[in-house]
Amino acid sequence: MSDTAIPTVEDMLAAHDRIRPYIHETPVLTSRMLDELTGARLFFKCENFQKAAAFKARGASNAVFGLSEDRAVRGVATHSSGNHALSLAYAAGRRGIPCHVVMPRTAPQAKKDAVVGYGGRITECEPSTSSREEVFARVQAETGADFVHPYNDPRVIAGQGTCARELLSQVDGLDAVIAPIGGGGMVSGSCLTLAALAPGTKVYAAEPEMADDAYRSFKAGHIIADDAPQTVADGLKVPLKDLTWHFVSRHVTDILTVSEQEIIDAMRLIWARMKIVVEPSSAVPLAAVLRNPAVFAGQRLGVILTGGNVDLDRLPWQNSQTGDQK
Amino acid sequence: MSDTAIPTVEDMLAAHDRIRPYIHETPVLTSRMLDELTGARLFFKCENFQKAAAFKARGASNAVFGLSEDRAVRGVATHSSGNHALSLAYAAGRRGIPCHVVMPRTAPQAKKDAVVGYGGRITECEPSTSSREEVFARVQAETGADFVHPYNDPRVIAGQGTCARELLSQVDGLDAVIAPIGGGGMVSGSCLTLAALAPGTKVYAAEPEMADDAYRSFKAGHIIADDAPQTVADGLKVPLKDLTWHFVSRHVTDILTVSEQEIIDAMRLIWARMKIVVEPSSAVPLAAVLRNPAVFAGQRLGVILTGGNVDLDRLPWQNSQTGDQK
Repeated sequence: MSDTAIPTVEDMLAAHDRIRPYIHETPVLTSRMLDELTGARLFFKCENFQKAAAFKARGASNAVFGLSEDRAVRGVATHSSGNHALSLAYAAGRRGIPCHVVMPRTAPQAKKDAVVGYGGRITECEPSTSSREEVFARVQAETGADFVHPYNDPRVIAGQGTCARELLSQVDGLDAVIAPIGGGGMVSGSCLTLAALAPGTKVYAAEPEMADDAYRSFKAGHIIADDAPQTVADGLKVPLKDLTWHFVSRHVTDILTVSEQEIIDAMRLIWARMKIVVEPSSAVPLAAVLRNPAVFAGQRLGVILTGGNVDLDRLPWQNSQTGDQK
Repeated sequence: MSDTAIPTVEDMLAAHDRIRPYIHETPVLTSRMLDELTGARLFFKCENFQKAAAFKARGASNAVFGLSEDRAVRGVATHSSGNHALSLAYAAGRRGIPCHVVMPRTAPQAKKDAVVGYGGRITECEPSTSSREEVFARVQAETGADFVHPYNDPRVIAGQGTCARELLSQVDGLDAVIAPIGGGGMVSGSCLTLAALAPGTKVYAAEPEMADDAYRSFKAGHIIADDAPQTVADGLKVPLKDLTWHFVSRHVTDILTVSEQEIIDAMRLIWARMKIVVEPSSAVPLAAVLRNPAVFAGQRLGVILTGGNVDLDRLPWQNSQTGDQK
């Protein structure tokens, strides 16, 4: 398989067979109160309950368990803002192979601890795309590990597409699915699956205004990449790449942006009403639905809750000094 | 039905038929990590996902929907440390009748707001059993509402017993069930159901050391009641009464106590690992299992997560000034 080939629905189906022993079929939750608030019928796909508490366990597991024995022995490596790192370390641990991770030094301590907890080996970089890529090249050269990009990898996109496949089997008659967009791995996997299996189901992406490069790319018709944007949704700071642009540019109906406060309010609403722990990125789609009620009124809408890795000492709705006082 | 009759398994089955339209059959979650940590096989019954985010919606719904039209028109009334109040307001709202609630002025603001949100009418009292009972007598005299005690009421105990019935249908071969104990409503309902339907399944109760009146009662062989104990598990401050003592004294295998820090640590562990929002009372059973691994080693254990109503601005593992600084 070429690393730059566009993944197909057959790749997604093969991924699902490959990873099923290592991932959860995550539940779909509903909330009458949130339905009333939004005027839509919302089906929350709870990837916060996934292994490593993130949908990225799907793509990472597909990459790790698809390796030949020869390549697997040298391990895998990646750079990641967090959840892909956890997930790759999780999958590598299940296979018993090394996992090398380059992470920004500013990544939440909870995510660093979890990577190490899964047996991952961390090398820190500065919190910019340029630094991350530079440090990573060095680590890869030293280890010979197989590079598993967080999203611009056909194995990863095919793996993420298994989430939408599960959702189709769990909920009938979805008008649309909405997912947060950073690098575009989940959105691309959703496009891949839905375009083939449920072409009448639209795909929307939701993005922080403070990291709106996908939105601007979508409107401009070509990839625009920002270096080191800042948003509370720390999983969404990375730019689109060629493979994800392929899906986003062809299959996404629209990209909707939301403010930092809207993300925090939506996150708190999910915690308070649904009694589940989700990270800020997970709240971006609900924030977009709340901001654009007319777009989704009366629709049956799948909402991807992408993960649940948060620092419980630093909740974004609390006084920002809280964590520093500890 | 006499208000002081001991409820039977037939009452529980009738309650289940009566309340099914108004409650959720809550999911059972498992965690490989928590199984490894405790050496037991844990089945978490997620009443934090229940209506009003507490198991108390079961007993409250049974009381409200069992009223004749004549009695229902004057409404219902109760005193409660929180979740019973929410739940009674919820059930009364579903039936469209008034709900009068006497609450300690120190109850979490989130719980007061939620009672009002469900249409309940609050009268405040001091945070002691004696004050609560005094104020309540006045409210009941003024309104003529039907008194639904938070736990010492056969309708309530029969309703709470439906939780263990669901659990039996969801998990095979349980060696034991463990639930937190305050007034003893959930423990009594569990005893009622399990003694009749699964007599081989033991019932354990878990209690904060700082409010250990049930533990001391159990060891002494008669009810001991403390006035105004203080614990982070704010649902567990109330004493046993005659009906709950009936079940606790006859059917409970043991009562295990835990420290405040053990409760907080177990609560944080549930949030961090299971990605769900539970209140401190819900964490008391896991804390007891962690403290007494030899008691539960190798067992299949149902763990009742009783509710999910927390003040998200004041998490107990954070600096205690946090909330005051807002």
